Amino acid sequence: MSSDRLRRYAELAVRVGANVGDGQYVLVDGLVEHVPLVRALAEAAYAAGARFVDARYADLHVRHAMIDKAPEETLRFTPPWMVQRLEQVGADSGAQIIVVGNPEPELFADLDQERVGRAQQVEFNEAHLKNVTSRAINWSLVAYPNESWAETVYGEPDLDRLWADVATAVRLDEPDPVSAWDAHIDRLEERAGTLNEARFDAIRYVGPGTELVVGLLPGSRWATAAAKTAFGRRHVVNLPTEEVYTTPDPARAEGVVRATTDLALGGRIVRGLELRFENGQVVDATAEAGVEVVRGELATDEGASRLGEVALVDGTSRVGRLGRVFLNGLFDENASSHLAYGNGFPYCVEGADEAAVNESSIHTDVMIGGPGVDVFGLNAQGDARPIILRNEWQLT
Amino acid sequence: MSSDRLRRYAELAVRVGANVGDGQYVLVDGLVEHVPLVRALAEAAYAAGARFVDARYADLHVRHAMIDKAPEETLRFTPPWMVQRLEQVGADSGAQIIVVGNPEPELFADLDQERVGRAQQVEFNEAHLKNVTSRAINWSLVAYPNESWAETVYGEPDLDRLWADVATAVRLDEPDPVSAWDAHIDRLEERAGTLNEARFDAIRYVGPGTELVVGLLPGSRWATAAAKTAFGRRHVVNLPTEEVYTTPDPARAEGVVRATTDLALGGRIVRGLELRFENGQVVDATAEAGVEVVRGELATDEGASRLGEVALVDGTSRVGRLGRVFLNGLFDENASSHLAYGNGFPYCVEGADEAAVNESSIHTDVMIGGPGVDVFGLNAQGDARPIILRNEWQLT
Repeated sequence: MSSDRLRRYAELAVRVGANVGDGQYVLVDGLVEHVPLVRALAEAAYAAGARFVDARYADLHVRHAMIDKAPEETLRFTPPWMVQRLEQVGADSGAQIIVVGNPEPELFADLDQERVGRAQQVEFNEAHLKNVTSRAINWSLVAYPNESWAETVYGEPDLDRLWADVATAVRLDEPDPVSAWDAHIDRLEERAGTLNEARFDAIRYVGPGTELVVGLLPGSRWATAAAKTAFGRRHVVNLPTEEVYTTPDPARAEGVVRATTDLALGGRIVRGLELRFENGQVVDATAEAGVEVVRGELATDEGASRLGEVALVDGTSRVGRLGRVFLNGLFDENASSHLAYGNGFPYCVEGADEAAVNESSIHTDVMIGGPGVDVFGLNAQGDARPIILRNEWQLT
Repeated sequence: MSSDRLRRYAELAVRVGANVGDGQYVLVDGLVEHVPLVRALAEAAYAAGARFVDARYADLHVRHAMIDKAPEETLRFTPPWMVQRLEQVGADSGAQIIVVGNPEPELFADLDQERVGRAQQVEFNEAHLKNVTSRAINWSLVAYPNESWAETVYGEPDLDRLWADVATAVRLDEPDPVSAWDAHIDRLEERAGTLNEARFDAIRYVGPGTELVVGLLPGSRWATAAAKTAFGRRHVVNLPTEEVYTTPDPARAEGVVRATTDLALGGRIVRGLELRFENGQVVDATAEAGVEVVRGELATDEGASRLGEVALVDGTSRVGRLGRVFLNGLFDENASSHLAYGNGFPYCVEGADEAAVNESSIHTDVMIGGPGVDVFGLNAQGDARPIILRNEWQLT
């Protein structure tokens, strides 16, 4: 039964997530702790007609040794073959499935936090973002349920409970998950359509510790995780997904925002993060723990401290209704509204405004929504219409 | 204690094996089952001054899915980045440590054996052999003791016993392993010197099922696993090592040879292998099991069915004295004399004969020595001098 749930999950990631096509070159990327899922994904991808499944395992303990002992210039180094591998799948119109979830979210806590912050595989991130923003590949992110993740979430390694929650979140509890996904995506597309009709000039967030206005570009268009490649192949970039999102104006964000969920980021847990924005830029970042990692990211490049994404999620989210902090970005960002500092999505912006989209080698989601945070759409005159109140979607 | 023996083993591989130098780029290659050793090697390599440790994990289960389901043309495919990664470390005068040992030696037994035989990552093998034969990198092979390997050797997962045997084999049981290695290499170098003075024209093997004469090139020179890169860095290519070896004349091998040890080869165990040679070429290969894998390898390219290496090991071998079949080439080949079909070593051949060295994308060791097999050196007139009799070294 254990291998059956893994097989069904992998098939969902291959068929609904990346939507692997006959003859495609398929990358699968995970950690060494994700071996069983990577193997199941390879099986499922070949069953779907993959020409070759190119699996790559990263090892955060090897990275720990690097951050601990390598020369300073190595901290930002990417092996050239890692870039070439991503460029090749992009040029080949291939597919990619990325397995996420760090089983040891505090692994880097014992390291020099300044070095942890500076350690960014910039060229690797850029190559990945290029594939994403140019819609070169059909890709998807999926998380791997294992005992250490269960321990993080429930305080005990209850793997069956985690699998049950994951199955609920990704609709594997439905008799026909594929058609359940079709219906779910339709509902999200409807929300995106309503937001696009409203043509808001800005989004305002109000809650405990949060009073933030983020400007949109005139060309900003709301989208869902249901994407289409430049060569016309549909895919769902996140399993689960509950968000509608767009790329904002990187020059317009004012105010403060308090993260509503702790953040597992590069081997550290960032607790109690607060960001203050002026003229679109983060001018101050504080946290109860782990702020060095955030500051390191914000200092990566010119665009790192500006916004690339605003995403709206309400209380109907299947992830949110589980009522858990998963310390896994893929799950937590689909439990509540969030922002991302760093790279934006040109395909979310129409016309000449595309040139204004923020560029960076990083893209980090920060959860800022929940029951206490209300969200309003503002027009150019500053008139407000409620989008989410008391965690319930309002805009129709 | 468990992590201490792993650390000492990794330090031996880094200091004595690859002899990683300050500022070097270091590849570490292993299977996902080798994670603890790869991590220890990364730690030890950074401690030795490595600039960057580039760890790559292969997954034989993903390869199993490939052989099972991928299109025919994929069987011989190598992802270009794998070649680029090896070329890069060669161009950079870097180092490499390769962890060997398949925890499931019969993993591919349920597959179509013709496809298993045809599945060869030709370009990957060629890139590796290019680094080796051009002495571009300081590299070493090391095996990872784990429970499944112990199960294979002893019929029970007695990991402590395997560690004890491995420690003996690699001289970690010595108070000062580094100087023990120096002394050991000196002894092997002395044997190689004696063989080089004798200037044999051919080697004759006589034993049960074996009556084989392998011709040497006039320029063939005997060597040990203690090597030196083109840029002058010493390293020991195998831990353990007990052999003296050279590259023979690929046009001269006559007779039959029976393997004295089962062979773990590409996810299959080859049992009872017999090879018949005419004019230097394997003209017939039979086995009780797994012969398809050998035949697949022999058909890989022009040079695959000719000899690239002859290696002599006697009964003083620390591995041989353990009296075990390890089903791990690195160990078994250092327990007894062996041959390798496939690629030869240009650096083992002096002068114009270098052009005659066998070329192939494969190189597979077959154990042919042991107590029942006597080895003689022949001069051009066919006069014989004993080299090994009753498993004891004779030539002085």
